[in-house]
Amino acid sequence: MKEAAKPTARVEAFSDGVLAIVITLLVLEIRTPHLHDILSKHEALEALRLLTPKFASFLLSFAYVAVFWVNHHHFFNLIADISPGLIWLNNLLLLFLCFVPFPTAMIGEYPSNPVALALFSMVLMGAGIVFTLMWRYAYKRGLMASSVGKHAAKAAVRSGLFGPPLYAIAAIGAFFAPGIAWAIFCAVPLFFFFHSMHLPEGF
Amino acid sequence: MKEAAKPTARVEAFSDGVLAIVITLLVLEIRTPHLHDILSKHEALEALRLLTPKFASFLLSFAYVAVFWVNHHHFFNLIADISPGLIWLNNLLLLFLCFVPFPTAMIGEYPSNPVALALFSMVLMGAGIVFTLMWRYAYKRGLMASSVGKHAAKAAVRSGLFGPPLYAIAAIGAFFAPGIAWAIFCAVPLFFFFHSMHLPEGF
Amino acid sequence: MKEAAKPTARVEAFSDGVLAIVITLLVLEIRTPHLHDILSKHEALEALRLLTPKFASFLLSFAYVAVFWVNHHHFFNLIADISPGLIWLNNLLLLFLCFVPFPTAMIGEYPSNPVALALFSMVLMGAGIVFTLMWRYAYKRGLMASSVGKHAAKAAVRSGLFGPPLYAIAAIGAFFAPGIAWAIFCAVPLFFFFHSMHLPEGF
Amino acid sequence: MKEAAKPTARVEAFSDGVLAIVITLLVLEIRTPHLHDILSKHEALEALRLLTPKFASFLLSFAYVAVFWVNHHHFFNLIADISPGLIWLNNLLLLFLCFVPFPTAMIGEYPSNPVALALFSMVLMGAGIVFTLMWRYAYKRGLMASSVGKHAAKAAVRSGLFGPPLYAIAAIGAFFAPGIAWAIFCAVPLFFFFHSMHLPEGF
Repeated sequence: MKEAAKPTARVEAFSDGVLAIVITLLVLEIRTPHLHDILSKHEALEALRLLTPKFASFLLSFAYVAVFWVNHHHFFNLIADISPGLIWLNNLLLLFLCFVPFPTAMIGEYPSNPVALALFSMVLMGAGIVFTLMWRYAYKRGLMASSVGKHAAKAAVRSGLFGPPLYAIAAIGAFFAPGIAWAIFCAVPLFFFFHSMHLPEGF
Repeated sequence: MKEAAKPTARVEAFSDGVLAIVITLLVLEIRTPHLHDILSKHEALEALRLLTPKFASFLLSFAYVAVFWVNHHHFFNLIADISPGLIWLNNLLLLFLCFVPFPTAMIGEYPSNPVALALFSMVLMGAGIVFTLMWRYAYKRGLMASSVGKHAAKAAVRSGLFGPPLYAIAAIGAFFAPGIAWAIFCAVPLFFFFHSMHLPEGF
Repeated sequence: MKEAAKPTARVEAFSDGVLAIVITLLVLEIRTPHLHDILSKHEALEALRLLTPKFASFLLSFAYVAVFWVNHHHFFNLIADISPGLIWLNNLLLLFLCFVPFPTAMIGEYPSNPVALALFSMVLMGAGIVFTLMWRYAYKRGLMASSVGKHAAKAAVRSGLFGPPLYAIAAIGAFFAPGIAWAIFCAVPLFFFFHSMHLPEGF
Repeated sequence: MKEAAKPTARVEAFSDGVLAIVITLLVLEIRTPHLHDILSKHEALEALRLLTPKFASFLLSFAYVAVFWVNHHHFFNLIADISPGLIWLNNLLLLFLCFVPFPTAMIGEYPSNPVALALFSMVLMGAGIVFTLMWRYAYKRGLMASSVGKHAAKAAVRSGLFGPPLYAIAAIGAFFAPGIAWAIFCAVPLFFFFHSMHLPEGF
C-alpha cells in the first residue's frame, strides 16, 4: 500500500481530465466555414457572423464547465475521505458534464429552437442536482473532517436549491421566447462566478 | 532520483488520462442532426428520437468505462510496486478501452445488427480478460504487499470468470435476437456497480 | 483536510490537461486527402503539397501553445498560494487557448485571408494580455513568496508589453500583405523560445 | 515556492496528457461505415473487412505511442533535474508524437502508397532521433544523478542508433514493395517491447 496517498487524489485527477477534455472539445463544434477555395474579406466576415450562435454557445458552455470545475475543486479540498457512493455520484456528475457538448452543439445550430434549449437546460439541471447531492452525501456521511467543510456543505446545499427552478423556467420559457432561456443561461454562471470570488484564498 | 516517488503514480496518471479521454470522446459520435437551417419543435423532437440508439450506446459505454475506472483505481490502490510486465498488461487493457468508441458508434448506428453487437461484446470481453490477468499477475508476482490486496486479488480473479461466458452469450445471442445482447450489456455494468458499492471506504 | 496539499496542484493539473488537449487536437484539422480509392505517388505528393498551409498553421499553433505551457509552468513554480481571482484569470487564459484550434483551422484553410489572420492575431493577443495580467495580479496580491518570483513577475509584465502591439501590427498588416502577419506569427514564438532558454535550471 | 515539488512533475504530467490523448484519438480515424440505414450481416462483415488497413494502422500507432510512453517513463524516472533545454527537446518529441495521427490516417487510407508509408516512417524517425538526443543531453548536462541513470543513458543512446537506419530502409523500401515498410513498422515496436521487459522492477 502506498503510504502518503491522498484518498481523493485519483478521483480529482480523473475528474480534472474529464472536465479539461469537455472544455476543450467544445471548440470542435465550430467548424471552419467552407464556401470556396479562396474567400474575400466580406465573405469571411459574413461566414464568421453566421457562426455567432456557435460562438455564443461555446462561451456559455465554457463558463458552465469552468464554474463546475471551480466548485468541484472547492468541494474536494474539503473532503477528507472517499467512498464508493461518492465516487459513483461523481461519475454521475461527469456523465452529465461529458454530455454537455451535444446540447451545446444543438443550441449553437438551432439557437431559437425550444426543444434544443430545453435539452441544454435539462442537462445543466441534472448536473446541478447531482452536485448538490454530492455535498449532501459528503456532509451526511461525515466525509468532511473540518467544521469549515460542514459549514460550506450546508451553504452549498442551500444555494443548490436555486438552480433547478431556474433551469425549469428556462426550459419552459424557451417555448414562449428563446430569449428567456438565453438570459437565464447567461445569468447562472455569472452568479456562480461572483459567488466563487468570495471563497477564501487557497480555497 | 526522486525520493518519495510512488512507483505506480505515472501509470495511474497515464491510465486516468486515457480513460478520461475515452469517456469524453464517446459524445462526439452523437452528431447534431442537420435537416434544415431552422427546425420546428416537432422536427427537433423527431430528430432526437431518431438518435435514441446513439444515446443508449453512449450511456452503455460510459457505464462500462466508469466501472473499469473504479476497478482500476481499486486495483492500483492495492499495488505496491510496478513491473514492465504489469505496465504492458495495463497497456493492453488500454488498447481495448481506447478502441471502445468504435464498437460504440457501430451499435449506435446499427443497434440491431448482430455483427456490430458481437464486435462490441468481443471488445468488452478482451478488456475483461486482460483486467483479470492483471489481478492474477500482480498476485503471483507478489506486487501486492498487504493481505487485503491478496484477498481482493483472489476475489477479483474469481469474479472475472463470470464476464467472458456472458459476453460470449451476448455475441452469439445477438444473431438470434439483438435484445439478448442489449440485456446482457445493461446487466453487466449494473452488477459491477452494485459490487463496487460494497468496497470499503477509502478503497 | 489533506495535509501536504500544494494549493496550486489542481489548477496546474487542470491547465496541463487543457493545454495537452489543445496541442493534440490541432492535428485533427489536417484531414486525410481523399481523392480516389488508390492514389499514385504523384497524386499523394500533390495532396500533401496542397496541405502545406495546414502543416504551417499546425506548427505555428503548436509552438504558441508550447511557449504558453513553458511560461505557465514557470509562473506556477513561483506562485505560493492560489486565490479565486487568480483561478478565474487562469480560466480566462484557458478560454483563449481552448479557442486556438478554430483560428488555426481558419488560417490553414485560408492562409492569405486577412480576416482569418486578424482573428488568429486577436486570439493570441487576448491570451497574451490575460497572461500578463496574471503576473501582475499575482505580484500585487503577494501570491509570490520569494524575491525570485517578484523579480520574474516584474520582468514578465515588462516583456508582456511587447506582444499586443506586435499582434496589432499583424492584424492590420494582414490587410495589406498576408506575409506581414505570417512573419510576426513566426517571430513571436521564436523570441519566447530563446527567452525561455535563459531561465534557470529547475525553473 | 513549493517545498517538496519534484522538478520534473509537471513535464511528466503534460507529456502523459499529450501521449494519452494521442493514443486515444487514433480510434477517431476509424469511421463507422455508413452504407444504408440498416446493414445485413454480410454487409456489416464486408464493411469491417474493408476497414482492415485502418485497424492495422491503429494497432501499429498504438504500439509505437505505448513504447514511447514506457521509455519516456523510464527516462524521467532517472532524471533528477529539469532544464529549459530538456523541456524544449521534450516539446519537440511531443510535436512528432502529436503529429502521428495524420500519417496513421494516411497509411490506413492508402496502405500501399509509398509516399504515405515514407511519411509515417519519417515522423517515427524524427521522434526516435529527438528521444535519443534527450538521453544524450541529459547525460552530458549531468541531469542524471545516479550511476544507474548514466548507464541507462549510454545504453539508450547506443540502441537509439538502430532506429534511424531502419526507418530509412522502410521509407525507401516502400517505393519497391510496401510490405518492406509494414514489416519494419511491425518489427520495431516488438523489439522495444521485448527490450522494455528486461527493465528492472519499479523502473
